[in-house]
Amino acid sequence: MAASDNNETQPVATQGAPTARTRMRRIAQRADYDRATLHAILDAAYVCHIAFADDLGVHCIPTACWREGDHLYIHGSNGSRMLKLAAEGAQVCVTITHLDGLVLARSAFNHSMNYRSAMIYGAFEVVADEQKGAALDAFMEHIAPGRVHDARSGNRNELAATTVLRLALDEAVAKVRAHGVTDDEEDLDRPVWAGVLPMALRPLAPQRDGELPPSGEPAYVREWASRAAGVER
Amino acid sequence: MAASDNNETQPVATQGAPTARTRMRRIAQRADYDRATLHAILDAAYVCHIAFADDLGVHCIPTACWREGDHLYIHGSNGSRMLKLAAEGAQVCVTITHLDGLVLARSAFNHSMNYRSAMIYGAFEVVADEQKGAALDAFMEHIAPGRVHDARSGNRNELAATTVLRLALDEAVAKVRAHGVTDDEEDLDRPVWAGVLPMALRPLAPQRDGELPPSGEPAYVREWASRAAGVER
Repeated sequence: MAASDNNETQPVATQGAPTARTRMRRIAQRADYDRATLHAILDAAYVCHIAFADDLGVHCIPTACWREGDHLYIHGSNGSRMLKLAAEGAQVCVTITHLDGLVLARSAFNHSMNYRSAMIYGAFEVVADEQKGAALDAFMEHIAPGRVHDARSGNRNELAATTVLRLALDEAVAKVRAHGVTDDEEDLDRPVWAGVLPMALRPLAPQRDGELPPSGEPAYVREWASRAAGVER
Repeated sequence: MAASDNNETQPVATQGAPTARTRMRRIAQRADYDRATLHAILDAAYVCHIAFADDLGVHCIPTACWREGDHLYIHGSNGSRMLKLAAEGAQVCVTITHLDGLVLARSAFNHSMNYRSAMIYGAFEVVADEQKGAALDAFMEHIAPGRVHDARSGNRNELAATTVLRLALDEAVAKVRAHGVTDDEEDLDRPVWAGVLPMALRPLAPQRDGELPPSGEPAYVREWASRAAGVER
């Protein structure tokens, strides 16, 4: 992600780049074509960025996503320009990035960032009407496990207004930097603080709307609140 | 970002979409062409996603970014495919997204996410050699204020190996959702927990490499540590 780190030595498992588009050019030792790594990066995400082109040029749109098996799913209104194009088979590149830290080296040049990212190339396919409900339930399960039994499910009109698309994970690659400072030998004695400033997307205290239901706080809200309070489970 | 929320009522200041590419089509009341909103979203970011096209198709690449005045800056190795294309004037779309929360409505359809996002269209311009150093210093100042005086600055070879590009904020739009649940009237009595599960990219405890320098922990590390410990300033 940065201009530096050409002197890294940490090996990353690679199993051969699937296609010309997913062959890692820069800092190739960070490329990781392992399926478990890819799935973990996707499953940690709520949002992806989708690149596509139309007659106005290229676009990069953030949207909610979830994974089921070997597909990444998105959804949206039938009226969405991106979804219409994607449903027509437009080629896309979908990228998910988790920023994990700032790497402060002793030289400006060797500064870097820790991150986990995944890129998926291909064309979305439309999820058929009879599978839409199940796919959206899986999204709810990703967001808030168990909630699908409590919230009102989509009715006929709502489902009809919603497009669900999925993208096969056939042409995908992950890229990860997850280590400390890599300084040049001659900079090691420089009297400057060096290290990593880690960061993470963390839950904050839930904000309830209206009354507490008779069943009380659901487990996923209690868990969110306890993680927000710094009580790791 | 979601299929829902067509029933929102919160007004968002709009000042007219600058171009066809930045005219918001979906949920237009979330569009915000105000410069202060745009700057705040960019300044809160460490990373953007850049969409561009080459003969292999469209790509979506995450990279570090920073703002100075009315430009967004990126940098990288001269060898980077994206930077080479961008330096040649390729049209791009740069998107920054901060996810702020999951919005759990009483119906599945009205679930949403809170977020702040910005999209910038245009073509990067190359920052001239004599301005590179100052631009990279500004990046360091964004990452860790004051550190530019401590870390070793880029030498001639390092600067020569680095491309710095900037993109004018002329064709840009922000999109923000920052409110609570919007349920349909007929769902309000449903006995299900509703509300927002907020989240934020938060600092975690610094991980020092090597010895503490004689000058001790710099202010930006102390501040990071205290925010990580939950002591808001």
